[in-house]
Amino acid sequence: MQITRRRQTTILLMVMGVLTLFTRGVAVGQQTDWYPSPWGADDQRGAANRLSPEEVLAARDLITTGQVYQLGRVYEAGMPVFGTRHFSLKIPYPLGPLGENQTTAHEAIISGELGQVGTQFDGLGHIGIGDLFYNGLSRHDFATPDGLTMLGVENVGPIVTRGVLIDVAAYKGVEMLDGGYEITRSDLMGALTQQGVSISTADVVLIHTGWGSLWMVDNERFNASEPGIGLEAAEFLIDAEIVMVGSDTWATEVLPNPDPSLAFPVHQLLLTKSGIYNIENVATELLAADQVYEFAFVYAPLLLKGAAGSPGNPIAIR
Amino acid sequence: MQITRRRQTTILLMVMGVLTLFTRGVAVGQQTDWYPSPWGADDQRGAANRLSPEEVLAARDLITTGQVYQLGRVYEAGMPVFGTRHFSLKIPYPLGPLGENQTTAHEAIISGELGQVGTQFDGLGHIGIGDLFYNGLSRHDFATPDGLTMLGVENVGPIVTRGVLIDVAAYKGVEMLDGGYEITRSDLMGALTQQGVSISTADVVLIHTGWGSLWMVDNERFNASEPGIGLEAAEFLIDAEIVMVGSDTWATEVLPNPDPSLAFPVHQLLLTKSGIYNIENVATELLAADQVYEFAFVYAPLLLKGAAGSPGNPIAIR
Amino acid sequence: MQITRRRQTTILLMVMGVLTLFTRGVAVGQQTDWYPSPWGADDQRGAANRLSPEEVLAARDLITTGQVYQLGRVYEAGMPVFGTRHFSLKIPYPLGPLGENQTTAHEAIISGELGQVGTQFDGLGHIGIGDLFYNGLSRHDFATPDGLTMLGVENVGPIVTRGVLIDVAAYKGVEMLDGGYEITRSDLMGALTQQGVSISTADVVLIHTGWGSLWMVDNERFNASEPGIGLEAAEFLIDAEIVMVGSDTWATEVLPNPDPSLAFPVHQLLLTKSGIYNIENVATELLAADQVYEFAFVYAPLLLKGAAGSPGNPIAIR
Amino acid sequence: MQITRRRQTTILLMVMGVLTLFTRGVAVGQQTDWYPSPWGADDQRGAANRLSPEEVLAARDLITTGQVYQLGRVYEAGMPVFGTRHFSLKIPYPLGPLGENQTTAHEAIISGELGQVGTQFDGLGHIGIGDLFYNGLSRHDFATPDGLTMLGVENVGPIVTRGVLIDVAAYKGVEMLDGGYEITRSDLMGALTQQGVSISTADVVLIHTGWGSLWMVDNERFNASEPGIGLEAAEFLIDAEIVMVGSDTWATEVLPNPDPSLAFPVHQLLLTKSGIYNIENVATELLAADQVYEFAFVYAPLLLKGAAGSPGNPIAIR
Repeated sequence: MQITRRRQTTILLMVMGVLTLFTRGVAVGQQTDWYPSPWGADDQRGAANRLSPEEVLAARDLITTGQVYQLGRVYEAGMPVFGTRHFSLKIPYPLGPLGENQTTAHEAIISGELGQVGTQFDGLGHIGIGDLFYNGLSRHDFATPDGLTMLGVENVGPIVTRGVLIDVAAYKGVEMLDGGYEITRSDLMGALTQQGVSISTADVVLIHTGWGSLWMVDNERFNASEPGIGLEAAEFLIDAEIVMVGSDTWATEVLPNPDPSLAFPVHQLLLTKSGIYNIENVATELLAADQVYEFAFVYAPLLLKGAAGSPGNPIAIR
Repeated sequence: MQITRRRQTTILLMVMGVLTLFTRGVAVGQQTDWYPSPWGADDQRGAANRLSPEEVLAARDLITTGQVYQLGRVYEAGMPVFGTRHFSLKIPYPLGPLGENQTTAHEAIISGELGQVGTQFDGLGHIGIGDLFYNGLSRHDFATPDGLTMLGVENVGPIVTRGVLIDVAAYKGVEMLDGGYEITRSDLMGALTQQGVSISTADVVLIHTGWGSLWMVDNERFNASEPGIGLEAAEFLIDAEIVMVGSDTWATEVLPNPDPSLAFPVHQLLLTKSGIYNIENVATELLAADQVYEFAFVYAPLLLKGAAGSPGNPIAIR
Repeated sequence: MQITRRRQTTILLMVMGVLTLFTRGVAVGQQTDWYPSPWGADDQRGAANRLSPEEVLAARDLITTGQVYQLGRVYEAGMPVFGTRHFSLKIPYPLGPLGENQTTAHEAIISGELGQVGTQFDGLGHIGIGDLFYNGLSRHDFATPDGLTMLGVENVGPIVTRGVLIDVAAYKGVEMLDGGYEITRSDLMGALTQQGVSISTADVVLIHTGWGSLWMVDNERFNASEPGIGLEAAEFLIDAEIVMVGSDTWATEVLPNPDPSLAFPVHQLLLTKSGIYNIENVATELLAADQVYEFAFVYAPLLLKGAAGSPGNPIAIR
Repeated sequence: MQITRRRQTTILLMVMGVLTLFTRGVAVGQQTDWYPSPWGADDQRGAANRLSPEEVLAARDLITTGQVYQLGRVYEAGMPVFGTRHFSLKIPYPLGPLGENQTTAHEAIISGELGQVGTQFDGLGHIGIGDLFYNGLSRHDFATPDGLTMLGVENVGPIVTRGVLIDVAAYKGVEMLDGGYEITRSDLMGALTQQGVSISTADVVLIHTGWGSLWMVDNERFNASEPGIGLEAAEFLIDAEIVMVGSDTWATEVLPNPDPSLAFPVHQLLLTKSGIYNIENVATELLAADQVYEFAFVYAPLLLKGAAGSPGNPIAIR
């Protein structure tokens, strides 16, 4: 077959088009209506853009008693982790004694998928739809062995804003929701109404399921499934324009998903499509026990250059 | 030589006494007047006991503009570290795609002496005088391969209190103090007077030396020495009953010490003897540039069970 | 009580004596007849001193078919490990492509107690009796955070000598000995007689128990106990002046010990007192299946400076 | 433009063809004549297939004195590494004392790119040409976060064969070749002639350059460049059908390549195209000093499942 120069050009353009589709999402069966982000095609911070001094001042005004809640879990060997992740902490022999003053120094040597074990903050480089991540960025353009050159957690910055606890377990009248229970929009709205609070733009929303009571008590069950929000409830939170959602579970979303063909779809909807952060294994039981539904929330991800997530010990102040 | 039973007993008691001295500090030439701690012989939190809801409310009242300063340094390969410490962050191939929704997930695998690299918080299990640590606790009683069973950073809790920046570089009229320059009590007092602020009980005091401008610019020089407080200035801070001191250097204290026989004596005076925490490699230049001398300081060490320190990204809010 | 100068001296000398006893073993209730070692008070290589060119030539003469057996186990996530040890292997994104020739490079990032997971070689710095290790060396004199300054595995050197398999499982007529079964001197002698081989100076002796068939099949059971040699059988091997013993179990010795007051006493007898090495999790089933009872054994520990052990993939050649 | 069904098909086929070319190497400017491998399209062992009992017996016959040379370098903090790789070894506090027999146990906790630091063995999963590795396998088909599912070093098996040292430094009359010096075919042939040995099928060839004398002496210079074989000399080794080449440098090949547009092309030619292994940082000076040019070579890569390489302590026996 002889191909004219013009036809060559036509074919080349079509090839390029197909290739572009391949690398920009159509090939993985996704809509392309989720990027560029509302914060521009160059944005790497997602819903952190909703934070502002006004939010800080509003959070400040929620501080009335000075009580501080520590919402992180203890990082320790034997805590439940997903798949082949690990967490190791060892104490080497001390340095020294040094000098006439005999200084001795302990260090801790730590390894693991920090940012994906224990209390963990999911950055925008963590979850993709096929090769595409937040803002339609292809991992082929930003993932390197030495770190993500875009969407790393060092871009997020401190999160100081109003926090709201939604105690769905209490709303449903149980100590702990069942594994696999999908928290619905109706659950969230009902619990909020019962609590007498509402959520608004730039909030951090923490959902108490009671599942955290299995932590270090029945790790196998803790890991096997979990109650959590489904796609519908996630849409509710997206509509509310929050900054971050979190829970006392290891994924925040219901597992397994009621649709068995889907794997972690809520992560994609929140992080990849909406730029909304997710923090997992939060010690929400402390707030639930005291019925603290509104508080100043403070958390600053570690500036781990190019990391997909961060460990953390977020706090609530009221 | 024949030894009577009575003499045997006498000798045995003396032996025991000598041994006790050996294990409780006299043998290393230290006074024993620094323990038990003012917070009791069982205390593991040191100056964190000075924190209270009142301090939180006082810090809240310093928040007037809602501006947040991120005081952590970026953790990255190639940052200056001490001795044989390391920091490694690598991005493995992504998990997935999983499910029909094609979820892809990046993780970061990290190893290193976290808590002793980058922005680092020294816990009370970090520094000892010979075998003795804070509250006279012997490392033989609490140090295990899997963590410190006492004095671990998980005991500290969130630090929410008034923060004060002392810009000693500005007070001395320089961009950066020289390596080996000992910051004196007079320097601290002079700078505070010039700034029009004072320090008080339960404060966190951050000292700006300008040395942080060498970070990732001239790491060799950064590591070779540093300006910092000496024993005299540390006594001033101890008398003021602060909770924590920090600086834009890797040790906060002057290095080398003007007395060449001493190795890190300020660490011992603050942490071991006084229970006052130390946070290093703080990005104080942000506060200095804006002349922010008073602020709400918020930092919660990671709950690393049995660790000697914690990484961090502390924040200042004004 | 007034103490004369002379009596002071007497007491001081006695104190020193007691202290010496404390640090040299009497205080831990052990005999002091096991050091200095037969290879001198400065020796760090123990039974590796039995190796010589003659042993190499004798091993060479056992090579008649050219068949090579690989005796290491596969290192992988999920393999059974003791306590809080771990093994992690991750593949980061590749480097490159670099240059016009587009070189791409994979690496593996690994962490763990290498030398104490999987097929593992115990060096002389691994096991002590209280504070005392091989040759009466006190860990206070050689253990540092950055490595053992004496007894590190880098001192061992290649082990090329005659290897002997003792198939105790076959001798007892079972596929696998029971967990907790103590292999006796009689078992070893009986099996050797049945096999028609004997052991002699400088041999490496591998003991097949069948327990290795649980590896990655029933890790929980594999770890919970094991068949292995007891103190009596160990004495038999010591008398035979071997260089190293090994097995298809994670400790070579019977666990739990029939005397419940003892923890890993065979390790002490072999390594600490006799300088005889121990290699664990050896794939002896390959030799047992082929009834290979004599072979050239070759293994060179990694030159991990100051390490207590080494991973390995020893080989048998016949 | 209207596109008929037939033309659609034509275009689709062309698109598929182009895509295939993209993923199978043409797009990266490489010939496709290097796969499938001579050992079949499913082979994962490359030149290790050249090993056989005959080679073992031939190696055995080279053992005449029983002298063993240890060819590994010491792994230690501060050794030269490439890029952001690291090696960390720390000794945690000992376990125990356990039992009445007071068993104490040291471990070493190690992290790093083992297999790509120190004495290092490059497996076939290490180096690719764009996305294609040995046997034309695409990394998209075998690289996962938890290991390479094909071409991992666990496939190699023990390497027991004749070893040949080529002392190019001696041939050129120098202690150490210059960094950037390209060892040519003529150099190899000349040195072999001078030494009175030849190379043949299934050999392991070690090249002494003297560059290893910089190891831990001038690490910066050691890393900055190196003498080594170029593409021409590599072809000579390929024609000789060897199993592995190695050297006392960190890459075996000349760096920088005389053609500045090329990055590690010899690695590609050997590993990717020819299935010939490469071992780096070999202590060849021991053999060179004794003028040992022929020997039995023994090395078994660690069975690190899915790893790109392995650490090692290869030995030469004569």
